[in-house]
Amino acid sequence: MDEIRPIEWLDGSIRLLDQTRLPHEEVYLTLTDHHQVAAAISELQVRGAPLIGIAAAYGLALAAQASPAADREDFLSELRAAADILEATRPTAVNLSWALRRLLSAAAAAPDIADAARQAVVTEALRIHREDAAAEEQLARHGAQLLSTGGAALTICNTGALATGGGGTALGVIRAAWEEGRLSRVYVCETRPLLQGARLTTWELQRLGIPHTLIVDGAAGLLLQRGGVDCVIVGADRIAANGDVANKVGTYALAVLARQHDVPFYVAAPTSSVDLATASGDEIPIEERSAEEVTSFAGVPTAPEGTAALNPAFDVTPHQYVTAIITERGVARPTYSKSLSALSGVAAR
Amino acid sequence: MDEIRPIEWLDGSIRLLDQTRLPHEEVYLTLTDHHQVAAAISELQVRGAPLIGIAAAYGLALAAQASPAADREDFLSELRAAADILEATRPTAVNLSWALRRLLSAAAAAPDIADAARQAVVTEALRIHREDAAAEEQLARHGAQLLSTGGAALTICNTGALATGGGGTALGVIRAAWEEGRLSRVYVCETRPLLQGARLTTWELQRLGIPHTLIVDGAAGLLLQRGGVDCVIVGADRIAANGDVANKVGTYALAVLARQHDVPFYVAAPTSSVDLATASGDEIPIEERSAEEVTSFAGVPTAPEGTAALNPAFDVTPHQYVTAIITERGVARPTYSKSLSALSGVAAR
Repeated sequence: MDEIRPIEWLDGSIRLLDQTRLPHEEVYLTLTDHHQVAAAISELQVRGAPLIGIAAAYGLALAAQASPAADREDFLSELRAAADILEATRPTAVNLSWALRRLLSAAAAAPDIADAARQAVVTEALRIHREDAAAEEQLARHGAQLLSTGGAALTICNTGALATGGGGTALGVIRAAWEEGRLSRVYVCETRPLLQGARLTTWELQRLGIPHTLIVDGAAGLLLQRGGVDCVIVGADRIAANGDVANKVGTYALAVLARQHDVPFYVAAPTSSVDLATASGDEIPIEERSAEEVTSFAGVPTAPEGTAALNPAFDVTPHQYVTAIITERGVARPTYSKSLSALSGVAAR
Repeated sequence: MDEIRPIEWLDGSIRLLDQTRLPHEEVYLTLTDHHQVAAAISELQVRGAPLIGIAAAYGLALAAQASPAADREDFLSELRAAADILEATRPTAVNLSWALRRLLSAAAAAPDIADAARQAVVTEALRIHREDAAAEEQLARHGAQLLSTGGAALTICNTGALATGGGGTALGVIRAAWEEGRLSRVYVCETRPLLQGARLTTWELQRLGIPHTLIVDGAAGLLLQRGGVDCVIVGADRIAANGDVANKVGTYALAVLARQHDVPFYVAAPTSSVDLATASGDEIPIEERSAEEVTSFAGVPTAPEGTAALNPAFDVTPHQYVTAIITERGVARPTYSKSLSALSGVAAR
């Protein structure tokens, strides 16, 4: 099986797998400037919290390489303008601003020559990608220990290689658990409106040879009621300092149902998704996307013309429902205000 | 606005609105024998628990009219065979077997002439349709009293004129509450896999001029969390003697979320959906439909070829989550084992 490479830096351009075309077509795009990258992020051709951090970083690297600025201040000012464009694409996942901040800091710290700063940005973007892949290997190992032997897991959205720079977050844990014989089956919520579960997670699981069953999002309750699920495991777009988790819309219902049926609810995310500057989930901005995503699918309208729709892309699961948060540095347990800041190596505000 | 007539008896044929073509096309089918009716029920061209009871009744009326039997016993035996075919189409909604039992009893009670029995079946089918419409007017009036002034309701699937012989169950309550100024907006879960919420409920609400907003099923939790919903109101395919409610898959999650947010969860159904012979939800058969309904969306395949899917059409909401059950004979409150049998006028087994 070929490795899935959703994004590659080709020194002057980015090769991007267009995820809106999956699972039926594998189409690769070549992006050569940061505006194209911003558009690809907005349109979800590239998605997944860790991966949009990497995509934004490479987008800023393209901007750095293309900059005509001769002196450092002009260069940094151009870079900040490009970062603003990239950051404005999606508000919820914190990895985006986290990655851009790292690059801007690297540029600012470079010797006083635009060329050195230019190179520092590219180097830092590549490092973010490499570190993310390494972090996910650690994360998967930590997470697999939590899964009971031979059980079934339920997940939502896509949190695998297509969502990250490496093997995935929640799906990385699932993969490691499968390899260790700790898992028998994965139930996949299709994840309306954009069907990342049906289109992307099943595609990855098929390639990995892990037994899986697709369900509509509304069937999760019945599945848990029937006792067929041993744990729920999801990714995160942002984790607040108190452990509240923003993730794909529908996650909160899974957490409430898991609690109802005494099934552990795990969140798997790199520490780059932990935002200690955000005290609680109330402060996490929830992206509202267009009504058309709800009133149609694949270009086919489902509702009568003119139907109003509400389309929040994420919801917030309060920390009380989260059994554990799995990161590359270890597993955080309640009280998260303490355990998360300890893992992140920073004092909580 | 024209009245919605999902089914009409034309004395020798049935005129049926093909609900699989809504909301984009209004296509009427002419059915002339009970096999066609059985197929229309299986394929969901006609759906909704009360309405499939009526459709099955008219299907049996067609069989009665077409029967060449000259004597009563032959006639009754043919009728039972036709009823078996109609009853086998869908296992969960109890209205189907309830309506068929009524017709078979009417036939059996008729004078000993096949023609009289034949006419008795047709008469009883028409009576079931008429009674259902009248029951829903009563039900809507009882239900509207429960809704607080000016609030918003959340519903799932379609429970309106398209699901019944009259104005609807849960959607009938919504309509009455709107007319009485007790409702400001309806949030409609799209109801995967077959999108009865997106396709049918929005279509009815648009015709009724009631403000409504469509959401994906997974967004219900966030909506309740934000405090935007004052009650959840749903229909039922079967209500067990203890008040457990089988309804469209996804209903159980709404009930658990409603409880979590102290929002009342109402079930609206005629007493013909109450099955006192079924002690609890554990005994209600849950229809499994084809995987293709999950692996495709509005005819467009969504998952990779060969993806396995689980497709339960219904789930069971335990009675503990049900605030009240609204019927045409009044509102049942816990303890349902007492209140339901009192309303149904039959001692619980």
